[in-house]
Amino acid sequence: MSIPIAAASSTAAVLTSLFVVLLAAKLGDELFRRMRQPTIVGEILAGLLIGPAVLGLVEPDEVLEVFAELGVVFLLFWVGLETRLSDLREVGPTAVSVGVLGVAIPFAGGIGLGLALGESTGTTLFLASALVATSVGITSAVLIDLGVLERRTSRTILGAAIVDDILALLLVAVAAGVAAEGGVDIGSIAITAAVALAFVAFVALGGTQILQRRPSLLHAPRFSESPLLPAVIICLGLAAFAAQIGLAAIIGAFLAGMVIAETRDQSPIEDEVAPLYAFFPPFFFAVIGLQVSLETLADGGTLALLAAVTVLAVLTKFAGAYLGAWRMGRRDATFVGVGMVPRGEVGIIVAGIGNATGTIDGELFAVLVAMSVLTTLIVPPVLRRLAVEDEEPALA
Amino acid sequence: MSIPIAAASSTAAVLTSLFVVLLAAKLGDELFRRMRQPTIVGEILAGLLIGPAVLGLVEPDEVLEVFAELGVVFLLFWVGLETRLSDLREVGPTAVSVGVLGVAIPFAGGIGLGLALGESTGTTLFLASALVATSVGITSAVLIDLGVLERRTSRTILGAAIVDDILALLLVAVAAGVAAEGGVDIGSIAITAAVALAFVAFVALGGTQILQRRPSLLHAPRFSESPLLPAVIICLGLAAFAAQIGLAAIIGAFLAGMVIAETRDQSPIEDEVAPLYAFFPPFFFAVIGLQVSLETLADGGTLALLAAVTVLAVLTKFAGAYLGAWRMGRRDATFVGVGMVPRGEVGIIVAGIGNATGTIDGELFAVLVAMSVLTTLIVPPVLRRLAVEDEEPALA
Repeated sequence: MSIPIAAASSTAAVLTSLFVVLLAAKLGDELFRRMRQPTIVGEILAGLLIGPAVLGLVEPDEVLEVFAELGVVFLLFWVGLETRLSDLREVGPTAVSVGVLGVAIPFAGGIGLGLALGESTGTTLFLASALVATSVGITSAVLIDLGVLERRTSRTILGAAIVDDILALLLVAVAAGVAAEGGVDIGSIAITAAVALAFVAFVALGGTQILQRRPSLLHAPRFSESPLLPAVIICLGLAAFAAQIGLAAIIGAFLAGMVIAETRDQSPIEDEVAPLYAFFPPFFFAVIGLQVSLETLADGGTLALLAAVTVLAVLTKFAGAYLGAWRMGRRDATFVGVGMVPRGEVGIIVAGIGNATGTIDGELFAVLVAMSVLTTLIVPPVLRRLAVEDEEPALA
Repeated sequence: MSIPIAAASSTAAVLTSLFVVLLAAKLGDELFRRMRQPTIVGEILAGLLIGPAVLGLVEPDEVLEVFAELGVVFLLFWVGLETRLSDLREVGPTAVSVGVLGVAIPFAGGIGLGLALGESTGTTLFLASALVATSVGITSAVLIDLGVLERRTSRTILGAAIVDDILALLLVAVAAGVAAEGGVDIGSIAITAAVALAFVAFVALGGTQILQRRPSLLHAPRFSESPLLPAVIICLGLAAFAAQIGLAAIIGAFLAGMVIAETRDQSPIEDEVAPLYAFFPPFFFAVIGLQVSLETLADGGTLALLAAVTVLAVLTKFAGAYLGAWRMGRRDATFVGVGMVPRGEVGIIVAGIGNATGTIDGELFAVLVAMSVLTTLIVPPVLRRLAVEDEEPALA
């Protein structure tokens, strides 16, 4: 039964890094919970502490990135299980305007900044795309933590995130096209858009109908075990398909959860998914912290650029989403605006693609990563305060 | 929120392969359940079908191997949760003699075969070590499936597996030393043995005492969540430590489960671990099937060698374990003997190390992998029949 020498060293290394990351995330979570601060901030800072930025105990690698990806996949699957299609329909028009304006204004801001800095067209487009990205994973976790997932504002953020993702997909495709070939293939962009829209519409509408008519697909009487594995397989399948067509995997996971929630009783599935939802997401938050490198930032000019990019990222996204949610009233629009601000892993990924293709240099890459993490750290305490204010109207 | 182009393609590929493997394993499981055959055989054959041997849909890669490793880690963690230290103490002397004889006789058989084939000393030692390896993961899954984990025979197999693993660790260290340097460093082997024994004794005895006195380590009143993550962190930590000192990671996971089971109520932990136990192990079984390549075996001479090695592997392990369990009576000794036969992933890993170091050639490697899978496929139906016979003494 022994796993010796060569295999042992790699098994030992992988298990050790999973152990260290999970332990650190749990301690960060626990510490921030006791300090009555948002727990995901504790998990991200724990990742930052053990990662290359500070202690260097763990380097981000492929395995950790897969666990992080499954973390946000199961997070959004969970959110989907808590969401009904009718909830999204209700907030539909507002969510679309939040999504569209929440993309347009940061994108314009990014273009303006790129031009002001005298960057090339390709770099400017990547910079603008990184400013557009929204990480609904971060906001979802905070909404779950605060117990406000069922509010209209929360539904609007989720709906807007889908619109946001489809638009961001198209922008990054344009940016990558310009960077690689200096031009844009309008035909292929149009096909990408059509496939993405068709996928979302087909799964949300068709999938819901299929499972409403044949819930036995999940609860087949002769399935001797729980519906967990069928549900997880649907989640992974739709997440993989979404990623294959260029959307975020979490859009597929969210839709999978929402479709499954339409079967009569999703509660046993929720109970069974809960441990997966406890196990994987800490990797997602800690790995965001692991990506930060402080070395490149130890320069006055770079810090000034970081401040400018971060302020621009926060203000433009807030303004766009706030305007989009205008009809909900000042207070709700503020909540939605703040909820759309975190860039999380998505800003990091867009910056990483720009860096890998040579369009984004090392300095700008470090700035965009730090901006993504900063916007992610700023939002949870603010959302928490806004949610509490909403519950105590006398104080508002 | 988009994950575009470069990152998308790797995310999509990873999610797709996880999806395909899990779906195939679940279908294989379900099919064999309906045919009243052992489900893990269905999962292994599903892996074989989608893998390079037949359809070539999925190649084994690092991510799948990590999921497979966590599969067997959570499997043995689960078995540990179902096991009390006192259960193992009771069967201790028998387990030791099963472990020792179950290693000595296959090792002697392997040495004999190597000499008969005219192999070098290094190759002979690796061949003998691959014959020694026992995969308690396979047997455990069958015992859980049959609901006989609490029988004395099952406890004996688990105890013997620990002894087996410590001895196998030493043999592979010797084989690797001989292959690399032509000699053995007795001092370092002795240290390896002492560290392994000290770890098992310290965790089993010390860990149990610590958690019996301070169960609050897991159930701290101010831990706002379930004890799942602390339990999983202990499991990963001990698994990683076991792997670091050269033992199988699953020994650490098993001990972690056993120690946690000593706290007053392990049942909420079992309920929470159940979904992880449902999610990961299918990867373990399917990946065993993924490792098989049929090309190298399509030769008469190679098939004859495979038949000889497999018969030798089955007979020597059965004979050793049967003799070790002699005092339990014919029927129980038969059950223990059969339960120790599967080589599973461990034979594959030992053969892989030999192959990577150039000590085992391509043909012998394919033979050892096929032998490991064959012994793994043969055992579950036999164990099932023996377990049923034990319940119906009138028919025996």
